[in-house]
Amino acid sequence: MNAPTAHSHLAPQVLQRVVPPELLAALQARFGSQYSTALVVREQHGRDESVYEVPPPAAVVFAQNTQDVADAVKLAAAHRVPVIPFGVGSSLEGHLLAVQGGISIDVSRMNEVLAINAEDLTVTVQPGVTRKAVNEAVKSEGLFFPIDPGADASIGGMAATRASGTNAVRYGTMRENVLALEVVTASGEVIRTGTRAKKSSAGYDLTRLMVGSEGTLGVITEVTLKLYPLPEAISAATCSFPTIEAAVRTVIQVIQLGVPIARCELIDHNTVRMVNAHSKLGLREENMLLMEFHGSPASVKEQAETVQEIAADFGGQAFEWAVTPEERTRLWTARHNAYFAAIQSKPGCRAISTDTCVPISRLADCLLDSVTEADAAGLPYFLVGHVGDGNFHFGYLIDPTKPEEHTLAEELNHKLVARALSLEGTCTGEHGVGLHKMAFLLTEAGSGAVDMMRTIKRALDPDNIMNPGKIFSM
Amino acid sequence: MNAPTAHSHLAPQVLQRVVPPELLAALQARFGSQYSTALVVREQHGRDESVYEVPPPAAVVFAQNTQDVADAVKLAAAHRVPVIPFGVGSSLEGHLLAVQGGISIDVSRMNEVLAINAEDLTVTVQPGVTRKAVNEAVKSEGLFFPIDPGADASIGGMAATRASGTNAVRYGTMRENVLALEVVTASGEVIRTGTRAKKSSAGYDLTRLMVGSEGTLGVITEVTLKLYPLPEAISAATCSFPTIEAAVRTVIQVIQLGVPIARCELIDHNTVRMVNAHSKLGLREENMLLMEFHGSPASVKEQAETVQEIAADFGGQAFEWAVTPEERTRLWTARHNAYFAAIQSKPGCRAISTDTCVPISRLADCLLDSVTEADAAGLPYFLVGHVGDGNFHFGYLIDPTKPEEHTLAEELNHKLVARALSLEGTCTGEHGVGLHKMAFLLTEAGSGAVDMMRTIKRALDPDNIMNPGKIFSM
Repeated sequence: MNAPTAHSHLAPQVLQRVVPPELLAALQARFGSQYSTALVVREQHGRDESVYEVPPPAAVVFAQNTQDVADAVKLAAAHRVPVIPFGVGSSLEGHLLAVQGGISIDVSRMNEVLAINAEDLTVTVQPGVTRKAVNEAVKSEGLFFPIDPGADASIGGMAATRASGTNAVRYGTMRENVLALEVVTASGEVIRTGTRAKKSSAGYDLTRLMVGSEGTLGVITEVTLKLYPLPEAISAATCSFPTIEAAVRTVIQVIQLGVPIARCELIDHNTVRMVNAHSKLGLREENMLLMEFHGSPASVKEQAETVQEIAADFGGQAFEWAVTPEERTRLWTARHNAYFAAIQSKPGCRAISTDTCVPISRLADCLLDSVTEADAAGLPYFLVGHVGDGNFHFGYLIDPTKPEEHTLAEELNHKLVARALSLEGTCTGEHGVGLHKMAFLLTEAGSGAVDMMRTIKRALDPDNIMNPGKIFSM
Repeated sequence: MNAPTAHSHLAPQVLQRVVPPELLAALQARFGSQYSTALVVREQHGRDESVYEVPPPAAVVFAQNTQDVADAVKLAAAHRVPVIPFGVGSSLEGHLLAVQGGISIDVSRMNEVLAINAEDLTVTVQPGVTRKAVNEAVKSEGLFFPIDPGADASIGGMAATRASGTNAVRYGTMRENVLALEVVTASGEVIRTGTRAKKSSAGYDLTRLMVGSEGTLGVITEVTLKLYPLPEAISAATCSFPTIEAAVRTVIQVIQLGVPIARCELIDHNTVRMVNAHSKLGLREENMLLMEFHGSPASVKEQAETVQEIAADFGGQAFEWAVTPEERTRLWTARHNAYFAAIQSKPGCRAISTDTCVPISRLADCLLDSVTEADAAGLPYFLVGHVGDGNFHFGYLIDPTKPEEHTLAEELNHKLVARALSLEGTCTGEHGVGLHKMAFLLTEAGSGAVDMMRTIKRALDPDNIMNPGKIFSM
């Protein structure tokens, strides 16, 4: 077989549209110091955590408010030039790449917490506020925001990709936790979706249409989120298992029994080793569940006892408790940094992340065969998972100078996705489609459903300027 | 002022489109005994629980499977004739009325439970299965489906209106509890949205676009729902309060403390009287909260103690417990029948229901002023509410032969909606927009958002044949 050139079989379609000098001049005039065409700035806005390399956007606008976004979109729309919203750049799937050229709209300076309505358990923020900043802002009210992708992502980006994380097993994802949005449409109009009421039957659910639309239908300029009272009691524990299967069978039973566990994460023994090295932890280097229980002291005790009994049935070791808040924070920070720990374990590597999610009863079938395949392939990988949701990530660590490693990783990914789909699951639990999963989406949803998405996109963005080339081809 | 003619200011726009005899002949040929043009059948399919009266549909097709629905839609589409899905006819807002003529597609014979996946806590049903039938089917697995509008509505109808009910305060609404759908589009194509995985970031959230779209974007032909383990312990109690305000203040505090109460319903003293008369209960005829607690025995005890303390602070009486399952069922059946109890309290009357929902901190402001207004107006009413969600219903009982009563009821409704919107709430928590709330939706969402809904509708249903004339004007 001919060795493929680097990434050639995966290279996104690059059809750079013309960005006319009149547009750049108009943006410069309107935005002044909030505007840059410096190569270093453009390059920083033209890449993310994905493996793709495409030319950077032609310019970057640093929006400070909704009007800035609306004006930037209107100017771009007048020239039919793409606009790509940018938060902190932590996408794993190429969402931020200017595959058709255009302008990056950086919303990181839109970082105000606009309203904390503690008595209603809601907070309204600008899209550049990060998840950690939300939590910092609301903790004095005794509240927290649970959604936590590994990176300290922006709330706008998290809404756009329908993100979740370790707490989703109990608290849901961005799908369940965004109440209302302000959005700049493809014509530069500002609309509002939803209200602060907890539920509504008032017309089409535009909020949830925007959540997960990856910037292809509009730029999110304000987000109202649900908050939760900080639990009266929190306990975190690790538990080691003789095999991945034992850990997974424990999780399945915990979920099927309806235990309201707050976090339930799998880390395989290899990844524990990487995490120990990176975060200077002394975790037992075995396959492990990291768990957290939230509730009243009595409820937390009850949950923990139930899970301990189940774990023991599957050969789990005794729980090791993280007792103090500091210990818990250290443990979860280490978990969140697993991705970076893995990257550092193989200098110069990039990770190709998988993101399948299956019904909980199919978790063992989906996961164990994929471990066997990955081990047989011989490519180093990390394996972590929000297994309480049926969601897990392999991160195949490839040397970007070795196309055969990339090819091998994608072969493993394809097999895993095919398996997940055959088990009534999805190709992406939380990372989004971006560039990487367009073909998978078509297989998963079918051409009828993808055509419906396309029809909506075409109707709301007739010139295809909102983050074009992502989710599906037009 | 001139007395308005009956309903004149509310009469839906009736622009009957032509239903050509060729279409009727083709439907007759395709559907045979599953097809009817008998007046009594058409009239039964041309009304719901709303106050509107419009001519019935030209014909009714009784679909038995997805192919039937697809074929009926294709035939209607070829003649640009409207199709209106029909489940059990329990809409309160005119969703089922053939305001532009057309064909009713009755899915009540599509009443099979297709798959119970107990180990994944999911069930897949045809759209004509009712909520009670779902629960009957899954109870032997130790599972239940919590969403419970008052009527024994069809799951298809509940999905189409984004319904909720008494358990939503803990379990969410149809928005949170529909995992996947099969839908027949306006062209008669069959698509699938979502999977059985608990979460997904795979493209636009077509599932939630369809949920709440009131039949205007497609006909739902299959629904996959989340299920929940039957709680280990369930306790239900009533608690009487000296004033509505005392009851409402109790609820607000319960929710703000994060007590995971499963049901938290307000019934005002007048409505308790109606319910007692209708359901032969001996409830104390005072303003009352009906509550239910789900969980482990310890958790239920803890929740109940917390709520009892809060209630006592606001002058609530001691809890009266419904101990046996039979007592509980009797209590909740009586609550679900409150609407019918009220209707029977004024022979010949119709109810005009309100459905506002506000953030919990605004509940007292929204509710109490509206009670004062309703009392001052002198029109009899019932008042019940899913107050834990900030959602409540006045049902103004009007004599349909007295237009001045209708006018008065709508004036009260308008004032209430204006108040709810000013308090960052919604005009409809769970009933949907239908015909009744089109003007309210425009005020609530703004013309930009409603235009976006229209644009989507136009793109997915260019001939406007899917339940036209509902939610917004085209």
